[in-house]
Amino acid sequence: MKEPDKAFVLWLTGLSGSGKTTLADRIYEFISKKGLSVEKLDGDILRGFFPATGFTRQQRDEHIKRVGFMASMLEKHGVIVVASFISPYRNARRFVRDVCKNFIEVYVHAPLDVCEKRDVKGLYTRARAGQIKNFTGLDDPYEEPEKPDIIVNTDEQSVDESASVIIDFIGKYL
Amino acid sequence: MKEPDKAFVLWLTGLSGSGKTTLADRIYEFISKKGLSVEKLDGDILRGFFPATGFTRQQRDEHIKRVGFMASMLEKHGVIVVASFISPYRNARRFVRDVCKNFIEVYVHAPLDVCEKRDVKGLYTRARAGQIKNFTGLDDPYEEPEKPDIIVNTDEQSVDESASVIIDFIGKYL
Repeated sequence: MKEPDKAFVLWLTGLSGSGKTTLADRIYEFISKKGLSVEKLDGDILRGFFPATGFTRQQRDEHIKRVGFMASMLEKHGVIVVASFISPYRNARRFVRDVCKNFIEVYVHAPLDVCEKRDVKGLYTRARAGQIKNFTGLDDPYEEPEKPDIIVNTDEQSVDESASVIIDFIGKYL
Repeated sequence: MKEPDKAFVLWLTGLSGSGKTTLADRIYEFISKKGLSVEKLDGDILRGFFPATGFTRQQRDEHIKRVGFMASMLEKHGVIVVASFISPYRNARRFVRDVCKNFIEVYVHAPLDVCEKRDVKGLYTRARAGQIKNFTGLDDPYEEPEKPDIIVNTDEQSVDESASVIIDFIGKYL
């Protein structure tokens, strides 16, 4: 593995089902194939490691801040980070931007009804049935990025198209 | 910065006031001067970043596991980690050992009464006065390492002597 010219943290935020993980996997693979040092941090995977992490506002905030800190440490040591987290609150995302050196915010956007129709993991169904509380987009807010560095609209663009937009943007760092 | 031959996680555990941070600083400096990629993770500093982290058994466990995960990520990317955490519970330390590739447990030992006499940060006084609850060694247990890779006795050895013991041990990785 070689260090990139300039490490960065590519942060994918958006609703559950918006396509964050799919895109993160693509981008990770692209960077990895270039032989560059890269790490993937994914919300579902990290929560699998730390099942006690809850979904209240404070718990989500703490979670994202910790992940952001971890990302910044990796970045500091020359590792590119591809992070995919719903990360619904602006404040927490701002914290991550502040601790990182090169923070690139990607708003992975699809309308709520599209995400709900996809319902890849069946979470929307469970949330509508009252089995999941504090579900982003339903009974917990998603605070849209005000000035994201990149927006992809996954209901209008194919995965390839969305991935291309991101890859074009990060080209200057690679 | 160059990558070491073999990254590792040097984990200093022990009571408050046993000398973990002092030793960690020494070792960090030693490795850093060699031009090797190294990061310091310290309990007090991390808790400063994340003030909401509590001191119940569950919160401590989660905290150490998260830190251990972070350490393992850095190690994976060729960064040596020097970590200093009271980390009083065996289970949590075992988790960290398991997620890391080369985990070196250093038991920084001094008898409780010696640590309490030092009371560098005035924490023992506050704990005795009932202002701090769940204080390791007083009203919360410290589970001693059963098979630490290194033991230093900071009540008998000088800082230089203790540091030398650790530096001799990690020599094979550098």
